[in-house]
This record gives sequence, structure tokens and C-alpha cells, in this order.
Amino acid sequence: MWEVRSFSFWRAVFAEFFATMIYVFFGLGASLRWGAGPLNVLQVALAFGLAVATLVQVLGHVSGAHVNPAVTFAFLVGAQLSLLRAVFYVLAQVLGGVAGAAVLYGVTPAAIRGNLALNTIHPGVTLAQATTIEIFLTLQFVLCIFATYDERHNGRVGSVALAVGFSLALGHLFGIYYTGAGMNPARSFAPAVITRNFTNHWVYWVGPIIGATLGCILYDFVLSPRMRGLAERLAILKGVGRNRPLEPPGDPVELKTQAL
Amino acid sequence: MWEVRSFSFWRAVFAEFFATMIYVFFGLGASLRWGAGPLNVLQVALAFGLAVATLVQVLGHVSGAHVNPAVTFAFLVGAQLSLLRAVFYVLAQVLGGVAGAAVLYGVTPAAIRGNLALNTIHPGVTLAQATTIEIFLTLQFVLCIFATYDERHNGRVGSVALAVGFSLALGHLFGIYYTGAGMNPARSFAPAVITRNFTNHWVYWVGPIIGATLGCILYDFVLSPRMRGLAERLAILKGVGRNRPLEPPGDPVELKTQAL
Amino acid sequence: MWEVRSFSFWRAVFAEFFATMIYVFFGLGASLRWGAGPLNVLQVALAFGLAVATLVQVLGHVSGAHVNPAVTFAFLVGAQLSLLRAVFYVLAQVLGGVAGAAVLYGVTPAAIRGNLALNTIHPGVTLAQATTIEIFLTLQFVLCIFATYDERHNGRVGSVALAVGFSLALGHLFGIYYTGAGMNPARSFAPAVITRNFTNHWVYWVGPIIGATLGCILYDFVLSPRMRGLAERLAILKGVGRNRPLEPPGDPVELKTQAL
Amino acid sequence: MWEVRSFSFWRAVFAEFFATMIYVFFGLGASLRWGAGPLNVLQVALAFGLAVATLVQVLGHVSGAHVNPAVTFAFLVGAQLSLLRAVFYVLAQVLGGVAGAAVLYGVTPAAIRGNLALNTIHPGVTLAQATTIEIFLTLQFVLCIFATYDERHNGRVGSVALAVGFSLALGHLFGIYYTGAGMNPARSFAPAVITRNFTNHWVYWVGPIIGATLGCILYDFVLSPRMRGLAERLAILKGVGRNRPLEPPGDPVELKTQAL
Repeated sequence: MWEVRSFSFWRAVFAEFFATMIYVFFGLGASLRWGAGPLNVLQVALAFGLAVATLVQVLGHVSGAHVNPAVTFAFLVGAQLSLLRAVFYVLAQVLGGVAGAAVLYGVTPAAIRGNLALNTIHPGVTLAQATTIEIFLTLQFVLCIFATYDERHNGRVGSVALAVGFSLALGHLFGIYYTGAGMNPARSFAPAVITRNFTNHWVYWVGPIIGATLGCILYDFVLSPRMRGLAERLAILKGVGRNRPLEPPGDPVELKTQAL
Repeated sequence: MWEVRSFSFWRAVFAEFFATMIYVFFGLGASLRWGAGPLNVLQVALAFGLAVATLVQVLGHVSGAHVNPAVTFAFLVGAQLSLLRAVFYVLAQVLGGVAGAAVLYGVTPAAIRGNLALNTIHPGVTLAQATTIEIFLTLQFVLCIFATYDERHNGRVGSVALAVGFSLALGHLFGIYYTGAGMNPARSFAPAVITRNFTNHWVYWVGPIIGATLGCILYDFVLSPRMRGLAERLAILKGVGRNRPLEPPGDPVELKTQAL
Repeated sequence: MWEVRSFSFWRAVFAEFFATMIYVFFGLGASLRWGAGPLNVLQVALAFGLAVATLVQVLGHVSGAHVNPAVTFAFLVGAQLSLLRAVFYVLAQVLGGVAGAAVLYGVTPAAIRGNLALNTIHPGVTLAQATTIEIFLTLQFVLCIFATYDERHNGRVGSVALAVGFSLALGHLFGIYYTGAGMNPARSFAPAVITRNFTNHWVYWVGPIIGATLGCILYDFVLSPRMRGLAERLAILKGVGRNRPLEPPGDPVELKTQAL
Repeated sequence: MWEVRSFSFWRAVFAEFFATMIYVFFGLGASLRWGAGPLNVLQVALAFGLAVATLVQVLGHVSGAHVNPAVTFAFLVGAQLSLLRAVFYVLAQVLGGVAGAAVLYGVTPAAIRGNLALNTIHPGVTLAQATTIEIFLTLQFVLCIFATYDERHNGRVGSVALAVGFSLALGHLFGIYYTGAGMNPARSFAPAVITRNFTNHWVYWVGPIIGATLGCILYDFVLSPRMRGLAERLAILKGVGRNRPLEPPGDPVELKTQAL
């Protein structure tokens, strides 16, 4: 439990709260309908993608910039952060998301609010289809995060933030038509709370969490296996091993040592 | 006052003038209405984003490429440039913006000019809401600049210019509907001068400056604190400490020593 | 035949299967018609581009992320992988593509499926014109892959994944109008199998393969010649020389040695 | 005159021919009108931008990937290549552009060809305004090229190709409405030859060349001055000094020495 006595832990938890607030605020806000005509899917997809890219750029070295309970869950399955940290991250993300949606509600004219960009399933899509879609959307996203954050790569991967952001945008370009493209339980939960509409809400938790778990297993155990023993993994989960959250590589060591 | 005797100081001031002229010229110009139908928000957002990306690429090593009084103010709060330099930067930015809008006015057919892409508040949005929007838009933008320019990072941040440009585009994707997305007092001031329309103009100074200040405080004091004492900060503000403007890292030292 | 006894070989073959499944699933899925009005070509082009960018990011260090029989063929002509590996790659890509289209078929409402984004030639375009278009589309794409993957470059090429993805998007921005922009026989084959429509299907094999071959010859022999003798080339094709697939540079050596 | 006896010289000249052919082919092709409704300016701008980005990626280390007589002229003013090389580059670019337009003409249905995306001035825009627009469009583009290619920078500039491509896209986002956004005499000349329409054609040579010259002067003499004497500059122009074309930094030395 030494983690909770460090500044860097609480800074990271705050970062997840703040990042998810910003993510939900900008993502939902850019999805509102100000005029007639169909939604501009490309515009919405890029808004979500650039939001997460900006947040990874700003907060990647502080908390890993998960901004997403499914991503935190995947890192937990991959034993890349402690269980305690994961619990606080998810709480912070869910609260941050609701805060972002609440602020958006407050600054938006009533006529524009609509359902606050609530994720809804297209009428022609069954629940099984919707869940499968969310699994695939999140699977490719988590694979991209795992590969891009992988500290064993040192090559020409370019911007970590843009790679992650464009992968999220890809999911939206495809998924908005089917399910509104959740890909993030905190993003789906926030407008559901504000609008008190939880119809089929479980799809946006079950789908992304299954997809994220598959992504972690596929990357860490099949495609690019990490040679770590069970003891090492358990130590990290308990918070007694490597204490850092997964983060974009190349960030300064001094930030760590600064923490108490 | 030794700064004003160096070539590099005046080169930087000129760079800010020129950069803001180009920024306003291209940004406003890409926002004009040549046909019927709603504004293409994605197109306008990318035009502003690519404009600032190009300017950071061209002038980042000359002046830091602030191109924005709110950004300069944030760097002043963070004690990253001298008060004298900040004053000249802001003057140059404001004049540059007006020059850019004036050139645009001159090269554009009268029928197309409209209000020269003046920032206006959506009729359904209150002044308090508009100010809050501008605060959030600029907050994420300044956070992105601070994190991306942070010389303590040495990792895979990719292109400094693109990160900053995409963050600006994100703000526009969201904010155009509410306030026209100022995010930059010089950009908002320029068409107001040309069209002599200062209705609610204060929103576009107060919002961005509050947002920029919050961004500086959040990054420099909370998320990624800099361990610098008050004396060091004061020395920089007075222009007797570290004399360089904040700039994208990795640029050549010889450029500095070249200056008188 | 030692290659087939290594884990890394089968991991790479699986990676090609999986990558092409994801590519076809997301690419075709983002091309379906959910509403009236013309196809949003920019949106479809970016979906394909971001799909391949994400896959290069995720799997570039596993298999080279060809995701495309024409690309594998070009690397074979350039003697950058063994004939055996090339055969398995192409099989995996073709099967993966069909699997992706099948999953898409399963999760999409019947009313939306249409021809599952089958590549079709515009009625006004002759077969010779269509083949020429596919040659040019693939030529620039393969040139970009060869130049970006070229391990002799060590400079500021930025993200390998984005460079390749944007080149693919470029081909689609131009080619969708003419031929639907195949550029990848596995992508063209998959919906043809599902919809049992092979009209002019040969164009989408002949065009990309000629374009890819020209791209390889142009880059490897004319623009940036590799000084390798015939013996060395033959050894690689037989799988007794350099055993690694072409891959984005800078990836860890330990991944190789891990393999049996 | 030793340059003309090297393989690398002719390879570079061929690269400029080929690159301009591809640039014009894809750029004009993506600007054709296949349906009713206004031109999608964002799509056209990104097509031009991604075309030049791909070509810089592929050919930057072969010829510098000027792809543009105005850019070659700017490098000549900056004494970064020999007069002889400049003359051959411009000839290759102009011929390449015409070849690209001719191939496009051949593969496009007659009903779609239109004026082959000829640059035309908006009826409400005067010739002086149009020339000023072309000056500004090319000025920012050449500044971006000079700053990005500048071998004195070694920092986080990201992808050379994307920076240049996005700057070109920026010019199109703004300029298409006014002049069709030439920014490149070879691009403007090609459809003028094919359609035999040279109305106001001089604007597309005079504007870009003035803009390019201003860009060179501004960058090389004001913003980021190079300390080179007249003798050194003359030697380069005569081809007896540094013999390499300006190119993206970081490319291998061995490519040079390979040449005869």
C-alpha cells in the first residue's frame, strides 16, 4: 500500500479524472446536432481521435493516459499496473466522465442538448451484433495502445499520441453507424447518467472489456510475448513490483524519483 | 534590458508579427462563405490547425511560435520568458493579426467578405457559457503546448508542430458551434477591428486568458511540477535569467550564439 | 525449410491472417451505405488509411504488416523474403480477408449489407483504363512502403505507419471513383466471395500486382539501387539467407532470438 | 559540368520527372467532378497534400523531391543547388506534369474530364488579387519546406513528408476558392497544355515564383540566416561546391558515394 502514500499516485489518479472529463466534454460536444442533415461521422471520429491524442500528449507521462476503464482493465490483465491503481483509475475515469458530461450539459443550450450524444444501438442491429462490434472496435484500439506503448520498441513509431488517436478515430469511422462507437465505458456511462437512460447500457461495458482483454492476450501472449513469470506478474498486481503505470516510452526518469 | 540589443530578440518579435499575420490570413480566409449551405466545420478546424502546425514548424526555433497572446501570457505565468519579451510579443501578435485580416480584406471580393469570419456567440449561448467554452478550448490547447514543448520530455512525442496543430483543430471542431472558437485574442481582435464590431469582444480575451493561465498552473504546478524557486522565476521575468523563449526542443544551440 | 519450424514464422503468418481480417472488416464496414446521398469518399479513404496505419503500428515488427498479396509479391520480387514465406503470407491474407468480410456480413443488418463494398468499375471506365488506374494506385503505394521501410534511411521519416496509411488513403481519394480503389487483391477478393460476384475480378489482381512489381523495380533498381548479387537474392528467396521479413526498422533484435 | 556525368544526377532528374507526373496525376484526378454538388475542398486539399507527402517520403533522398519549379527556383536563390541542376529539374517537372495530365486524360471517361482541374480565377477576383493569393500560398509553403529541410535543425520536427504535405494542404484549403490553388507552375501548366487554355496562365508562374523567392529570402536571410559567403554561394550555383541537392536530413551518405 506504499503507492497511495506517493504524490505521483494521486497525481496520476487526478490526471485520469481530468483527462476523462476533457475527453467526454470534447467528444460528446463535437457530436451534438446544431443543424439538420445527417451527422458528419468523419468530423465526430476525428474529434474523438484528436481528443485522445491531445490527452496522451499531455498526460501520457503522468498516468499513462488510459482515459478508459477498458484500457485500464487490459493493462491489469497484462500485469502492467497494480490492482489498487487500477481501481482508483477506473473510479476516477467514471467520475471524470460524468463531470465532463455535466459541464457540457451546463454550457449547451437546451435545444441542442438532445440525448447528449448517448451511445445507442442502430434499430437494425441486434444486441449480439452490437456487442461483437464493440469487441472489434476496442480490440484494434487496445492492440494499438499495447504495441505503441511497448517499451521494447525503439524504432520509427512516430508520435505515440497520434497513433493512439487515429486508431480511436478508425473505430468511430466504422462503429458510429452500428452502436455510436462506445469503445470506452466511461464515455458511454456519462451521458447515460445525465439523461437517465440505461437502455442496453451493459453492451458498452461488456463489449469493450471483452475486446480489451482479447487485445491484451493477443499482443502480450501471442504476437509479441513478454517473458515474465507468474510471480513477477503477481508482484506488480499487488503493487510491490515495478511501480510505474504503463506509459509512453522515453519519458524522464526524474519525474518518478520526484515522487515521495 | 540587454535583450532588446540582440538581433535574436527583434527577429523573434518580427516572427510573432509575421506568424500571426499568416495565421489570421489563412484561418479567416478558409472560414469565408463562398457558397450556400452550412459551414464545413471540419474544413475550417483543419485549416486553423494546419496553419498553426506550419507556423510552429517554420518559426518554432525563432520565437517559440506562440502566435497567440493567451499562449504568451501562459508562458509569462510559467516564467518562461521575460516580461519585456512578452509585451513585445503580444503587441506584434495583435498588429500581425490586424495586418493579416487587412490583407485578406484587400484580396477578397466584397460579396464574399461577410463579417470576415468574426467570432460570434451562438444566439442560444449565454455570455457565461461562452466564456466557459473559451476557457476549456484554450485550457486543453495550452496544456498540449506546455507538454509538447516541455524540454524534460525526450521521448516519442512525434512532431511538435502536428501535436499543437491538432489540439487547435480539436478546439475548433467543438467550439465553432458555440463561440466560433476564438482560442486566440489576436485572431478574434483582427476581424473585430476591420468590421468595427466589438460586441461581446471581451469574451475572446477573458476566456482564453483564464484558460491559458489555468493550463499553465495545471501543468507546471500540478501535473508535471517544475522545481524552480521564486528567485529563478523572477530573474527570467526580468530578463536576466535564462534568456531564451520557450521553444520546441532539439533546436540548434548555434542559432542562439549567432545573435549579437 | 527451417523457417517453418520457428515460432516467429507461424506468428508472422497468423499476424498476416489477423491483420487482413481487421483491414477488410474495418475498410469494407466503413464503406457501407447507411443513408442516402453520395458516398463520403474522404471518410472511406481515411478509414482504409487509418486501418493500415494501425495494423503497421501493431504488427509491423511481427510480420512486416504486408496485409496485401501485392505487397508481399513486391517484396518477393525484391528478394526480401523467402518464397515459402511469401506463399504462406498470401494464403493467410486471402483467408483473413474472407474471414473479415464474413464477420462483417454477420454483424451487419441485411438492409445495409448491399454488395459489401465490392470493388466495381465505374460504367464509363474501360477495363484497360481500370487496370491502368489500379497499376498507378498500387505503384505509388508500394513505392511508399519500400522507401519508408528502407533500413538504409535513418532520418526524419516520422511514423512508418502514418506514411504508409496516408499513401493508401491517397490512392483511395483518387481511385474510388474509377474502380472503387482495390489496391489489394485480398480486399477485392473477400466481398467477391461473399457476394459470389467475380465480374472483372481479374482487374483487381492484375493491376495491383503489375503496379507492385513496377514499384519494386523502380525503387530497388532505379531510384535507390541495392547492391546485392544474384546469389544473395536467391539465398533469401530459398529461405537460407537473411531470414527476417522486411519490417519497419528499429525494432528489437530480441524478438528474433526469442523464436526457436 | 562533372555533375552530368554522375548517375545520381540523372537519377535525380528522373525522380523529379516521375514525381511531378504522379503529383499531377493524383492531384488533378482527385479534383475531377464525378457528381453534382460543390467540390469537396477538404478532400481535394488532402489529396494534393498526401500526394506531395508520399513523394517526399519516396524521393526526398533521391532528388530532394521539389516536384515544383517554384520550389526549385527558391532553392536556386538560396544557393542550395547548381544552376545546371535547377534547369534540368524544372524541365523534368514541366514535362512530368504534362505526362501526368496526359495519362489522366487517357484513363478518364470523356464525360468526367471537364477542364481537367485547370486552375482558374474566381470571377470576382482580380488578377492582382489572384497573384497576391498565389504569393501568400507559396510563401508559407516554401517557408515550411526550408524550415523542415533545414539540416541545422535536429529536433522533434517529426515527419518531413507530413509537414510539407500539410502545408500544401493548408494552401489549398484557403486558395481553391480564389485561384484553384496553383502553388506549382508545373501543376498549373499541365492541364493548360492538355486543354489548350492559357487564360491568365502567367498568374500561376509569377505568383508562385515571387512567393517562393520571398520565402527563401525571409527564411535564409532574415529568420534563420545562413552564414555563407558569396564565393561559396557562387561555387554551389556553378556546381563546383557542395554537390548535393537540398534533401530531407538524415539520409545515408552511402547513397551519394555509390554514384559514379
